[in-house]
Amino acid sequence: MRDVELIIEEARKLVEPDPETADKARKAEKIIKERLDKLLKDYPELEYRFLGSYARNTWLPENLEIDVFILFPESYSFDGLEKLAIELGKKAVDMYELRYAAHPYVHGTVGDVEVDIVPCYRLSSAERIKSAVDRTPFHHEWVIKRVKGLENDVRLLKRFLKSINVYGAEYRIKGFSGYLCELLVIHYRSFLSTIEKAARWKRNLVIDPGRGSEYVKKDIEKLHVVDPVDPKRNVAANLSIDSLAKFVEASRIFLREPSIDFFIPKTFSVNEERMKKEIHGRFVYGVIFERPPVVEDNLYTQLEKAERRIADLLENNEFTVLRSGHHADEKCCLVFELLSGSLSKVRKHYGPNFESYANSMKFIEKNREYSRFFENGRYVTFRTRKITDARELIRHAITVHHASMGKDLSEFIRKGRVIEGQELLEHKDLRPFLSEFLGVNR
Amino acid sequence: MRDVELIIEEARKLVEPDPETADKARKAEKIIKERLDKLLKDYPELEYRFLGSYARNTWLPENLEIDVFILFPESYSFDGLEKLAIELGKKAVDMYELRYAAHPYVHGTVGDVEVDIVPCYRLSSAERIKSAVDRTPFHHEWVIKRVKGLENDVRLLKRFLKSINVYGAEYRIKGFSGYLCELLVIHYRSFLSTIEKAARWKRNLVIDPGRGSEYVKKDIEKLHVVDPVDPKRNVAANLSIDSLAKFVEASRIFLREPSIDFFIPKTFSVNEERMKKEIHGRFVYGVIFERPPVVEDNLYTQLEKAERRIADLLENNEFTVLRSGHHADEKCCLVFELLSGSLSKVRKHYGPNFESYANSMKFIEKNREYSRFFENGRYVTFRTRKITDARELIRHAITVHHASMGKDLSEFIRKGRVIEGQELLEHKDLRPFLSEFLGVNR
Repeated sequence: MRDVELIIEEARKLVEPDPETADKARKAEKIIKERLDKLLKDYPELEYRFLGSYARNTWLPENLEIDVFILFPESYSFDGLEKLAIELGKKAVDMYELRYAAHPYVHGTVGDVEVDIVPCYRLSSAERIKSAVDRTPFHHEWVIKRVKGLENDVRLLKRFLKSINVYGAEYRIKGFSGYLCELLVIHYRSFLSTIEKAARWKRNLVIDPGRGSEYVKKDIEKLHVVDPVDPKRNVAANLSIDSLAKFVEASRIFLREPSIDFFIPKTFSVNEERMKKEIHGRFVYGVIFERPPVVEDNLYTQLEKAERRIADLLENNEFTVLRSGHHADEKCCLVFELLSGSLSKVRKHYGPNFESYANSMKFIEKNREYSRFFENGRYVTFRTRKITDARELIRHAITVHHASMGKDLSEFIRKGRVIEGQELLEHKDLRPFLSEFLGVNR
Repeated sequence: MRDVELIIEEARKLVEPDPETADKARKAEKIIKERLDKLLKDYPELEYRFLGSYARNTWLPENLEIDVFILFPESYSFDGLEKLAIELGKKAVDMYELRYAAHPYVHGTVGDVEVDIVPCYRLSSAERIKSAVDRTPFHHEWVIKRVKGLENDVRLLKRFLKSINVYGAEYRIKGFSGYLCELLVIHYRSFLSTIEKAARWKRNLVIDPGRGSEYVKKDIEKLHVVDPVDPKRNVAANLSIDSLAKFVEASRIFLREPSIDFFIPKTFSVNEERMKKEIHGRFVYGVIFERPPVVEDNLYTQLEKAERRIADLLENNEFTVLRSGHHADEKCCLVFELLSGSLSKVRKHYGPNFESYANSMKFIEKNREYSRFFENGRYVTFRTRKITDARELIRHAITVHHASMGKDLSEFIRKGRVIEGQELLEHKDLRPFLSEFLGVNR
């Protein structure tokens, strides 16, 4: 066996659920079944199914969660479906809370196993769905028929992606969903061949697992994986190009130098001395504020928006933004690294070319603060820059322009604090993020 | 009469030589004639002519200089011509020094009138010239036949150009030569109509005074004035677009608000308090060094080259140069105004797109100082910037890269001093230049 195959064999042991966990899961499954069989006796038009990674045996031990779907006939209204599903769900678990996706649904525990009880419509084709969850039964059907024998390869891929932080389609990660992992392994027939192929992926690749084909398409911007149950849908729609690139890079490095580390979740060790030394002489600013109580995807969408907005304001004021980022923990933080922390009190103001008679006269009329000159026949003058210091400009941005920084965030940002350099390091929660942001995490 | 015509009438008195100066000139002319008539008796193959603005009566009183050309037959060698011309020239003036243009020539005085005695070949056509001075007799012939009655209009144009510092074709000015002024006034028939036309000039205009026509030509970059005695030659070749723009602007302002000030050489008053206040909070640097003993055109060509070279080095190191300039007096100074005076100790270093397998692996191999990340699928990392301070970088530039800053300048620049902000203002000679450079000269 090649090195890479040896490593993969070793890794299988790390990703497969141990007998104890598997047993615990089966017990919970049995309890749920008993409860639902009983509950649904009064509703012969309903049925329940175990779907998702648990039902397909592709779950990672650290992510055990049992998904149960209750399928409703189309005669039910949205409201009727929601109400009944919650009522039934509550009774199927030991403890519960309500969560929100397409519909509200019951998230609870049975024993110490996490369980989702989700309602959806029973439809004849995935192309007729009313909301995203209605597609799940079709995904399940398609995968379950094909994944037999490849379950642990799916697990290997998931863990591999986790180790480089691109597992999950949520906005925070913009990575690979579990379903996408299953499709890839089914399409390429193994974990190893998925990695080998990915090492040569291009961003404009189309993979069609339903037809078992793939091809490069000129005018697409990013990976397109055709959903076999709904060919108009891109399963990789939420995958960012940079997450894709990370996976491609990791595949290459793994093939060149196979290591078990790719299957072990990273424990981040921060070199505090280096960070302290590093941040000196760099212009790094943070906006730190309370975390608003919104669901994660909304939070991260708006963090990104606010980050972009402040970066744009900095650039519009001629600061060069080297890198920006955001982090959410108990608090939220937007971070900006700049080429320089303070600018000249004048900025160049360009006017028309001298040929434009009327505009030239207007320019002369309007610009009297500084005298004017020409650059290759074009009018130029100086104007006073009101804010020359980056920290002050960011403070101005959150005080005056917060309204355009996300509806759930804006008031929190307005009350935020602008910090700089060493002050950032005082926030312990931020350190692992900053370590990567500053490029010193190795 | 319109306002503008009244002002022009008033200005005529300012530009026409007073009787005393005219008389002084005529006396000197008479003396030169007598001496040369006598001297040339032994050389029947030679003749002399009074050419240039004095001979055409288009000279400005403050610029009186009598040009005498000695015309040699083509049988003379360059060396023979030079030697004899200098010998004769010396004897034609009271005091003299040698100057260098195409040939060396005698510059001297008769009474207190300045005189140039210049040798050239007598040719059948301007298209057969051996050096630029051989063209002068042809220029004179063409102008003298057409300028009668327009002499003072030429003077008005010259003085107008002087007041905005674009009179003279030398490299320091990159403006309008005296001959170009004569051609324009002959072409447009008066000073006023020259101004009126210039107000609507475009940089890609072609003026052909020989044919009395003008037209716009798509693919030329700057004003082309066809030499009537040598149609391949552009009389405005040394005119920069920015000098052109200054003239166009001044024409418009003069027409809108006619003022005698356009015919009075400016006396520059520097507002020292404003300059002092202004330079604070701006990032202005100077390289000050001894003036090398080279002719003016060479000096200014090389000053511009050195200025460009240092500006490029600054830009290559990610400093933004808002404006650069140079000034020569007893000392030389290169001046740079920057957007910012100090930069982050890291700079972004871009690598390949992730798709490029081999280059990606090379990039990973080579960049280990900082960890890497992706921007839209492209590799990026940081690298250490060695010099973060602008002053230090300029010092580095003149110490290490002086060799590429002009052959006559480089050793002087190497020994130069880098100064900054207020230190610049301590150099009194620089103040008028700096006042304009900073945009506070009004």
